[in-house]
Amino acid sequence: MSIDQSRLWRRLETLSRLTDRDRPWTRRSFTPRFLEGRAWLAAEFRAAGLETGIDAGGNLIGRLEGTEQGLAPILIGSHSDTVPSGGRYDGILGVLAALEVAQGLIENGERRRHPLEVVDFLAEEPSEFEGLSCIGSRAMSGALTPEHLALRRADGMSLEEGIAYVGGRPQDVAGSARAPGSIAAYLELHIEQGRVLESEAKPIGIVTDIVGIRRERITVTGRADHAGATPMPLRSDALVGAARLIEAAYQKAMATSGDAQPLVATFGKIDVSPNAANAVPGEVVMTLEVRSGNEAAVSAFGGALVREVQPELDALRLKVKAEPISNVAPVACATVIRTAIADASRACGLGTRDLPSGAGHDGVFVSRLGPIGMIFVPCRDGRSHAPEEAIEPEQVADGARTLAGAVKVLDERLD
Amino acid sequence: MSIDQSRLWRRLETLSRLTDRDRPWTRRSFTPRFLEGRAWLAAEFRAAGLETGIDAGGNLIGRLEGTEQGLAPILIGSHSDTVPSGGRYDGILGVLAALEVAQGLIENGERRRHPLEVVDFLAEEPSEFEGLSCIGSRAMSGALTPEHLALRRADGMSLEEGIAYVGGRPQDVAGSARAPGSIAAYLELHIEQGRVLESEAKPIGIVTDIVGIRRERITVTGRADHAGATPMPLRSDALVGAARLIEAAYQKAMATSGDAQPLVATFGKIDVSPNAANAVPGEVVMTLEVRSGNEAAVSAFGGALVREVQPELDALRLKVKAEPISNVAPVACATVIRTAIADASRACGLGTRDLPSGAGHDGVFVSRLGPIGMIFVPCRDGRSHAPEEAIEPEQVADGARTLAGAVKVLDERLD
Repeated sequence: MSIDQSRLWRRLETLSRLTDRDRPWTRRSFTPRFLEGRAWLAAEFRAAGLETGIDAGGNLIGRLEGTEQGLAPILIGSHSDTVPSGGRYDGILGVLAALEVAQGLIENGERRRHPLEVVDFLAEEPSEFEGLSCIGSRAMSGALTPEHLALRRADGMSLEEGIAYVGGRPQDVAGSARAPGSIAAYLELHIEQGRVLESEAKPIGIVTDIVGIRRERITVTGRADHAGATPMPLRSDALVGAARLIEAAYQKAMATSGDAQPLVATFGKIDVSPNAANAVPGEVVMTLEVRSGNEAAVSAFGGALVREVQPELDALRLKVKAEPISNVAPVACATVIRTAIADASRACGLGTRDLPSGAGHDGVFVSRLGPIGMIFVPCRDGRSHAPEEAIEPEQVADGARTLAGAVKVLDERLD
Repeated sequence: MSIDQSRLWRRLETLSRLTDRDRPWTRRSFTPRFLEGRAWLAAEFRAAGLETGIDAGGNLIGRLEGTEQGLAPILIGSHSDTVPSGGRYDGILGVLAALEVAQGLIENGERRRHPLEVVDFLAEEPSEFEGLSCIGSRAMSGALTPEHLALRRADGMSLEEGIAYVGGRPQDVAGSARAPGSIAAYLELHIEQGRVLESEAKPIGIVTDIVGIRRERITVTGRADHAGATPMPLRSDALVGAARLIEAAYQKAMATSGDAQPLVATFGKIDVSPNAANAVPGEVVMTLEVRSGNEAAVSAFGGALVREVQPELDALRLKVKAEPISNVAPVACATVIRTAIADASRACGLGTRDLPSGAGHDGVFVSRLGPIGMIFVPCRDGRSHAPEEAIEPEQVADGARTLAGAVKVLDERLD
C-alpha cells in the first residue's frame, strides 16, 4: 500500500480552491462551479488509470477492476459539493483519499480481489431542491422517488433537469438503482466535524453508527400580559415553562453521556411571542432535535421529556404540545468494517476511538446495498460548515493510510 | 357631589369612537385624529363652564376657580392619546371623569377652596418621537429638554413642531414650567391594566407607588457547535445558561410576592444565535425588565441574579454580561392622597385594595410639583393596550364617585 501524502495534500488544495470567490469555500451542487470541480476530478480519475463515468443518478465513479471474477465492488469515496461558505475539506477529503488509495495500487502494480469504485456522490449536502440531501446515494440505492425528481429550485429548474445538467440520466434513475447485496462494502473517510478526537488526541475515529435524527416542534402556550401590571403569581409565562423544558432536556441527555450509544438533545431554534421587553411571553415555539444511534431512545425522548415536566407546566397554567417534524432512523456501521478499520489503524500505529457520527452521510442510503463503515479524522477545534474548517497534512495522511489498510483487510476478509 | 353616570358613559363612547377606522381604538398623539379628539374635548370643557386653554407644553387644561385666594390648584385628569390599536379607556377615563367631577360642582353651584384644573396631558403614551412618552407632563414639570424638542419622527417633523401643531408654544416650554410646590395635588383615575382588582373583586385600587423600571441587556455567550457532532459534555450551550437565568429570576421575583412592595421580573425579549435546529446555541441576548416600588430592590436585582447563577454558568463554560439599558426611579403616592381615596371609597361603600402601578404614568413627572395619587378601577380580564380593552358602566361610576369624593376630602385637608 502506498499513499503519496504530498500529492493528496496538493489535490485538496487544488479542489478546495475551486470555490465561489466571494464566499470561500463554496461549491454548491448543480452550479457551474460544481461542474468545474467535477471536470477536474474526472480528469484526475482518468489520469490515475480509473475507468471513469457518471452514473444515472449523477454520481462520478472511477472503477479499478479486481482480480477475482464475480465479486461485488468495494466502494470508497464521499462527495465534492459543499454547504454555502463552508466545507473546505468536508467531502473532498473522502473522495481524494479514495482516489489516492486506488492510484497507489495502480502505480505499485497491485490489485485487490474485489473491484474498487471511487465515488463522488452527487449533492450530499442539503441542495437548493427544497433542501433534499444525499441525492446521488438515494439514486444509487433506489430511494430517489418521482416526487423528488419533480422538486424545483427557486429559478424553476427541476431536480430531473438538475441531474441531467450534471451529466446523469434522470430517466434511467429508477431502472438502474443497484440491488441490495450488490456492493461488498462502502467505506468513507471524513473529518469528524466535532471535537471528540481532538480533545482526546486520537488520530482515528471508528464510526459506530450514523445517528438517527428526530425533530419535534414543541409549543408552550401561556398568556401574554403587561409585564408591569401582572404580578408574578398571576402570570402564565411561556418562557419560564420553556426554560424548564430546556433544562430537563439537557439533564436527560447528559445522563446518557457514558452510554455506549449516547444521546444528544438540542433546543437550537426558539421563537417567543410577542418578544417585547414589557410583555410576559405568551407563546414559545421551539425545535427539539434528538440524535442517537439508539433508535428507541430517540423515539421516546420527546414524549418522556414532556411527561416529566408536565406537572410543573400545569402549575404555571401552561399548555404544551409536541408535534413530530421529521424522523430518520439510525444506521449501524458493520462490525466487519469497524474491525477492519481498527486492524488497519493498529498496523499504522495509530490510536483509535469509537464514536457515533452525529451528522448524516451518504452511508445512510448506501447501507441498503451492503455493509458500510466510516473513518473520522480530527479537524481543528471541531469547526465545520464554516470558513475556518481546517485539517493538518499529517491528519490527512493518517486517514488515507488507514483507509488504504482497511480496504486491503476488507478485500481479504469479504466475499 | 354629583356624578352624572350616563353622561360620563356617553362621553366615553363618543370620544373612544374618534378612532382611526381601520385599527380601533387608535388616536395617536400629533395626528389629525388626535386634534379631532382634542377639539371635541375642549368644546365639552367649555360647555361645562371651565376656563379652557392649551398650555405651552400642549396640555389641554380646563380651570374652575376656588373660593380661597392664594391656594395652589388641585389637578385631576389623564391623557387622550392612545397606543396603536389599543386604549379604548386607557387615559380618556381619567380625563372625562375629571371633567364630570368639575361639571358636577358647577351644576350644583358648589365650589372647592382650591382651584380645580382638569388636565388632558399631551402624549402620555410612547410617541413617534423616538418613543418619548409623558411629553406634556415633562413640559409642565420642567423635564422636557431642548434635546427632546429636537427629536424628529419618521416624516421629519420635530417635537418642537409637533407641540406647535397641537396648539402649544414650544418656545415658552422652558420658561413656563411650573415650580415645585406649585400644585396642591395631582389625582388620576385610570383602568388597572392588570387582573389584581378583578381577581379579588375589589372595585377600587389605591395606588401605592408608580413602580421604578430598570432594563438590562443580558448576554450569555457560549459556543455555536454542530448539534450532531458535539456530545453533551463538550457543549457550551448559551440557551441552557439562559434557561437557568430565566428560572432563577422567576423564583427570586416570586419570593417577593407577599412583600409590601413586590417586585416583578420579566425576560420578555430573547434572541438566540444562530437559531437553527441543528446548531447548539452560541449566544443568547435577553432583556431583563425589573419593576417595583422598592428602588433598592430594582437596582440590586440584576446583579444579584447574575451572581447567583454565575457558578452554574461557569460550569457550562458560559460567559455572561449585564448592561443597563434604562432606569426610571419609582415614585411613591402621597399618604395624604392615599388616605383621601380610602376615606372617599369608604363613604361610597366601595372596597379597596392597595397596589402598585406597574405601568408608568404622567404622575411620575407631576410628582416634582406636588403630592400625587392614583385611583385604579378594574378592566375586563386585565386586558389593556389591546382592542379587547373593556370596562363596565358601574365600574366607571365607582371610579368617578371615588375621584369626586377624594377631591372633596383633599380640598378640606390640604392648604
